[in-house]
Amino acid sequence: MTESLLSEFSALQALRARRPLVQNITNYVAMTISANVLLALGASPAMVHAAEEVEEFVAISDALVVNIGTLSPAWVTAMRRAVARAAALGKPWVLDPVGCGATPYRTDVATELAGMRPTIVRANASEVLSLAGVAGAAAKGVDSTTRSDDAVAAAMALAHRIGTVVAVTGATDYVTDGSCLVTIESGHALMSWSTALGCALSATAGAFTAVVAPLDAAIAALAVFGAGGAEAAERCRGPGHLSAEICDALYLMDQPTLARRVRVEAREAPPH
Amino acid sequence: MTESLLSEFSALQALRARRPLVQNITNYVAMTISANVLLALGASPAMVHAAEEVEEFVAISDALVVNIGTLSPAWVTAMRRAVARAAALGKPWVLDPVGCGATPYRTDVATELAGMRPTIVRANASEVLSLAGVAGAAAKGVDSTTRSDDAVAAAMALAHRIGTVVAVTGATDYVTDGSCLVTIESGHALMSWSTALGCALSATAGAFTAVVAPLDAAIAALAVFGAGGAEAAERCRGPGHLSAEICDALYLMDQPTLARRVRVEAREAPPH
Amino acid sequence: MTESLLSEFSALQALRARRPLVQNITNYVAMTISANVLLALGASPAMVHAAEEVEEFVAISDALVVNIGTLSPAWVTAMRRAVARAAALGKPWVLDPVGCGATPYRTDVATELAGMRPTIVRANASEVLSLAGVAGAAAKGVDSTTRSDDAVAAAMALAHRIGTVVAVTGATDYVTDGSCLVTIESGHALMSWSTALGCALSATAGAFTAVVAPLDAAIAALAVFGAGGAEAAERCRGPGHLSAEICDALYLMDQPTLARRVRVEAREAPPH
Repeated sequence: MTESLLSEFSALQALRARRPLVQNITNYVAMTISANVLLALGASPAMVHAAEEVEEFVAISDALVVNIGTLSPAWVTAMRRAVARAAALGKPWVLDPVGCGATPYRTDVATELAGMRPTIVRANASEVLSLAGVAGAAAKGVDSTTRSDDAVAAAMALAHRIGTVVAVTGATDYVTDGSCLVTIESGHALMSWSTALGCALSATAGAFTAVVAPLDAAIAALAVFGAGGAEAAERCRGPGHLSAEICDALYLMDQPTLARRVRVEAREAPPH
Repeated sequence: MTESLLSEFSALQALRARRPLVQNITNYVAMTISANVLLALGASPAMVHAAEEVEEFVAISDALVVNIGTLSPAWVTAMRRAVARAAALGKPWVLDPVGCGATPYRTDVATELAGMRPTIVRANASEVLSLAGVAGAAAKGVDSTTRSDDAVAAAMALAHRIGTVVAVTGATDYVTDGSCLVTIESGHALMSWSTALGCALSATAGAFTAVVAPLDAAIAALAVFGAGGAEAAERCRGPGHLSAEICDALYLMDQPTLARRVRVEAREAPPH
Repeated sequence: MTESLLSEFSALQALRARRPLVQNITNYVAMTISANVLLALGASPAMVHAAEEVEEFVAISDALVVNIGTLSPAWVTAMRRAVARAAALGKPWVLDPVGCGATPYRTDVATELAGMRPTIVRANASEVLSLAGVAGAAAKGVDSTTRSDDAVAAAMALAHRIGTVVAVTGATDYVTDGSCLVTIESGHALMSWSTALGCALSATAGAFTAVVAPLDAAIAALAVFGAGGAEAAERCRGPGHLSAEICDALYLMDQPTLARRVRVEAREAPPH
């Protein structure tokens, strides 16, 4: 993989050309920013979560994003139906197991959904460790207390076991399908000071699954979103305008910017 | 109607003086931007949707906005009660049938609510065609796949049949009461890259129904909001800050800006 | 208390050092801005409201914020459980009785929750009057129609009766524990043109309860948030970017800015 990020930019161009309809069952905090990020990328977002219509909406969508950030029983019912329908129709879907490990309810729902074989799981280190069943996984509510580096082995094991791509994000981002491991350096520390950007990144991954293969989609999402975050952070004196600046940066993203802002590196897979 | 937009600006002045209480039963994505747009216009917004209190809240409100963007059964119950109460009290209300046509559930709810005679229906072309029962109405989730020009006849028929004002928005906006047809040119292409602006426009229409007659309210809403969008877009390099800039533009809107940014034209009604 | 605001800035430093986990059961409009304000202050926010997990989440949180802005029965159940758990564990919690007085449902829920002895009640004048049972308390939906000055006696009586700290906000802010009364001058008139800032202030108070005593927490919250609002408003030409600018101002807040932007004055308690 070269540093020119040609394949990632090509994925973005495909996304802009295809304008995929991305259905989101996501949390209340993340809805608006997720919709705006998807629009800025060139996708067509829809936030549809009623059990009465999710299955029919999945049928017309190009990808589905399921985020348990503000879960409740009625929403979990809708998540199950939507995911089952996506699986039946062969449509890609992304799981964001927000706060997995923080409460048993959250862990149970995340584990059940992960067992339904998402195309991509996008999570922070604490969530990956919890989902992988690593004992003593620690979290502080919905924030990770573990470095992404320390979740790589768990991410690979999880990806291998359930047959998915796992993207674990942090200071360094990792993507794995259980055998291949890709490291992505991008983004900016200020991003952890603005809410729901991880959720918006998961939505971004959803959009890319509509146009390229799962592993490529995860890599492209982390690269493009991270480049947008880095571009945006340089224009900010604090976190207040960061999400708006990220939308602008995604809307304006070109190949030179992507290449300048992101380092992607594929490694030999460690044993698991 | 002159190009000086005197009657539209007069409606805005009346809104600012009256500071109407506008109750919104709207979708999660649109709530914050709708509230901020209503505040910037000079209205007093409230987001109240519990079946336990909607009827009493309608009684103290000056106008009601019902938006089915993220509908679910409990919310539909509240919508029905609120609308029935508004009708009983003679209070104006606006229907935004988001995504009508995308799923049967959504179409059924929108059709039922439209049958309760909203003061104004504000929708995109696909939604108007679906609501008017035009066969083969196409949509892409909550985005229209049809030009507003192609929904004018359906809008006029719908307005005539249910006795309402229909505002169909797109590159060109149209307002009709079933006999009169008004064309409004304003806004900016960038507005389709920022989520929930159509919803915020529907909320704007709700605010205007508290101060002027339905047809005038719809025209004033499209003119003022469109002018705000055009002003805002010129200050943006992408869609990220657009909604914030629209709030500033609405807050600062004056008659010369309105006249410069908007073209309103009344036409002979075509047969229906 | 000096004008140097040393104790308030010290509270902010303690907050930044402790990075408390603040659980919010809040309204849909306020969720994103509350989360972003809490992050900008240095806290770790979580929006968790499912009855299935609120009690366990309270157990891992440092403070709880309960805001009834968009209440419904399932949420009220979660509020009761979370509050009971916080009380059992001795964890501080803040009540924001949004719109108390506007409908009987809202007044009943707010009154019940106030009876569960919140650490701090943060409200506008109309809400305080309603909660204190003052006959004829007037409101316009969720906006106050009464000056904060006219709610001071009611705030003191309420604080004394239920054994809490009451913060009543308006042009001038007041904090009382029923015997001591503190006046805080800060903020900016533009703040009433941007939605959910009062809710974000209540969340701020929640964060401070994790690091200092209740009365000090309320004062620090009003001082810091008001200073942020004043700083932010000077950078704005309208309300559109105000909430983003407030996040930047909170993120960058230092002691000289706080001292320049805020006047805190303790008074002899009037009789009640």
